[in-house]
Amino acid sequence: MKKIEGGICSVEGVKAAGACEDNYGVTVIHYPGSSAAAVFTRNKVQAAPIIITRESVKDGKLSAIVANSGNANCFTGKEGIQHAQTMAFQVAEELDIPPADVAVASTGIIGRQLPLPIISKLINHSLQRLSNSPEASKNAAEAIMTTDTYPKEFAVETTLDNGKTIRIGGITKGSGMIAPNMGTMLSFLVTDIEASPSELEESLKKSVEKTFNMVVVDGDQSTNDIVILLSRPGHGNIDEKFQEALDYLCSELAKMMARDGEGATKYMEVEVKGAKTLNEARIAAKSIVKSPLVKTALFGADPNWGRIVAAVGYSGAIMNEDTISVRLEEGERFVDIVNNGEIMAFEGTEELELAESIMEREEIKITVDLAIGDYKATAYGCDLSYEYVSINSEYST
Amino acid sequence: MKKIEGGICSVEGVKAAGACEDNYGVTVIHYPGSSAAAVFTRNKVQAAPIIITRESVKDGKLSAIVANSGNANCFTGKEGIQHAQTMAFQVAEELDIPPADVAVASTGIIGRQLPLPIISKLINHSLQRLSNSPEASKNAAEAIMTTDTYPKEFAVETTLDNGKTIRIGGITKGSGMIAPNMGTMLSFLVTDIEASPSELEESLKKSVEKTFNMVVVDGDQSTNDIVILLSRPGHGNIDEKFQEALDYLCSELAKMMARDGEGATKYMEVEVKGAKTLNEARIAAKSIVKSPLVKTALFGADPNWGRIVAAVGYSGAIMNEDTISVRLEEGERFVDIVNNGEIMAFEGTEELELAESIMEREEIKITVDLAIGDYKATAYGCDLSYEYVSINSEYST
Repeated sequence: MKKIEGGICSVEGVKAAGACEDNYGVTVIHYPGSSAAAVFTRNKVQAAPIIITRESVKDGKLSAIVANSGNANCFTGKEGIQHAQTMAFQVAEELDIPPADVAVASTGIIGRQLPLPIISKLINHSLQRLSNSPEASKNAAEAIMTTDTYPKEFAVETTLDNGKTIRIGGITKGSGMIAPNMGTMLSFLVTDIEASPSELEESLKKSVEKTFNMVVVDGDQSTNDIVILLSRPGHGNIDEKFQEALDYLCSELAKMMARDGEGATKYMEVEVKGAKTLNEARIAAKSIVKSPLVKTALFGADPNWGRIVAAVGYSGAIMNEDTISVRLEEGERFVDIVNNGEIMAFEGTEELELAESIMEREEIKITVDLAIGDYKATAYGCDLSYEYVSINSEYST
Repeated sequence: MKKIEGGICSVEGVKAAGACEDNYGVTVIHYPGSSAAAVFTRNKVQAAPIIITRESVKDGKLSAIVANSGNANCFTGKEGIQHAQTMAFQVAEELDIPPADVAVASTGIIGRQLPLPIISKLINHSLQRLSNSPEASKNAAEAIMTTDTYPKEFAVETTLDNGKTIRIGGITKGSGMIAPNMGTMLSFLVTDIEASPSELEESLKKSVEKTFNMVVVDGDQSTNDIVILLSRPGHGNIDEKFQEALDYLCSELAKMMARDGEGATKYMEVEVKGAKTLNEARIAAKSIVKSPLVKTALFGADPNWGRIVAAVGYSGAIMNEDTISVRLEEGERFVDIVNNGEIMAFEGTEELELAESIMEREEIKITVDLAIGDYKATAYGCDLSYEYVSINSEYST
């Protein structure tokens, strides 16, 4: 398995394009006759494109995706549904495919009707420029950005047990509102493996649980989240190698989102190991990356193990004060600030000095060993900065 | 039922005192031979004083409370337990009561051993100054403050169905880390009603669920939270009138905490009504006050109903987009920004203008009517400001 260039266009047969104007962007991806699977937001308020796409993907077939940024087309009633359908129709007509084979996704402000003239114009621009090139993938990744500060794409190649070499490429957006069970995140993944919709769905769900669902920026859940995976039709090829490659791709995209959390100045990866169950490892890891007190401590470069331990304590995971260990790491350096329940980093110790120096860095790994079981999980997050407050107190005005 | 002055010292027989030095404070409350009930944090990491007090209160009897600020005596091992016991012993000896009749509570930084010499000195100062006066209650409320910006006390008088007039007084602290299931909150309540421990416990739990547990500042749960209620011994007097008075007292103290949330510039009260169940009303209301996006919108005076509706959507409460209504209120003014699923406040409308003007105020009430059931609940919170980030990124250094 290796990282490759080209994003979604590293996969043969995938055409993409993106176009932007003012605060709006449109991305079109064309991959005719694909098998398709999707994972949707669990928010009970669901945007119009989510309602449409949930239907389109039911038969496990898609040929194109159209997505816009700048307006979420959410809480927009029947008119919103019509607008989402119009987006699909426009793409279907130009590409000569059934409208039901076009997935629609949107991200942006909710509660306002989609400005159809400009979106339609941008869809048209995109359709005219569809191509299979690294630039096209990058343009597509750019066009779905909202408060993201850079486009996010990744691609990976692996050889399956059956000897076939396959590729998976993905683009994603999402920086604010990223949360457990996904924030406003749009992720479009394509692969040239030949697979059935149900095989894809099983594989996608496994990856999403471990990756996108473990990213926390502010704990809010969006109304518009969607992850779509397209492949060539067929079956019987998905194996552990494919799963590993998909996990890797999704975790790299997830990390990009955490790094680019709204106003983030620092990135943290939190591994909880030695948990009684997988679920407890996950909720404990997420509890830490979600804690405003841990996030502000990270921003302030404060090795406040107390807030870390307290966040485990209220997560619901079973823990034991006498066995817990907490390690801070960056690059080659690490320090155990709590060791089997004993505090190592207090005033005057080398441990505290090292811990403070590690916390100054931009990328920090926190490992919590509960030492009471065999399960582990990793969550991805960022700090809580003045800039986060600034972005979100002025976002819709 | 009426509000009265004097805090905990409005209750006859209650003596109190507080003393502070540097970053430390000590509060002592003496109410000999009381019936007692307490509610504790649900965090799995529990501070030494919580462990001690859980034992002391088991027989339903207490005569005194000693609490310190500046150090939480949490994650401090056996030494921490000894320190908490030493605090109880010192008070017990001076007041000539059994050590098991002294409750201990602490708040402050976790993971550092209690600086016993200074705490002991402050306990001594407090013991020398115990008195039944409004100043004593105020001093006691002041001495347990940490990042609180003002002391919090309240008292109420009511006449029971049996004709007896009783009083309830309370002091509380807690501004950061205030959370569902209580943040670092110490609340000490006293009343001259004659009640049994089990009667007190039932009544206290009812009030705490509706009030302290509905306050959210940052969603973190402390290791040190405790609410203690002391009364005269006896039984058979608690009735609806008492419950109303206790609810009123606790909700006023809860509101004070929300208003004084770390870095708060604005206070919000969120009522969710028309929910299918009481639990759903509660989780929806808490989800709104807890949402970083709603909190930053409040800070930015942005009537962003979309974030409010989205927070209900991911709360887990059953809702219907077509029946939901959202009202903003302050003083005599109100505006329905969403009415039965229809957005009323959009660009160019009077509703938006009024909504923006209301959001500029310091105290805002948000009412969400789900219109699908008969249950309602209120949660209390504040905005998320630059100052919150500042306080918490520099707290322990």
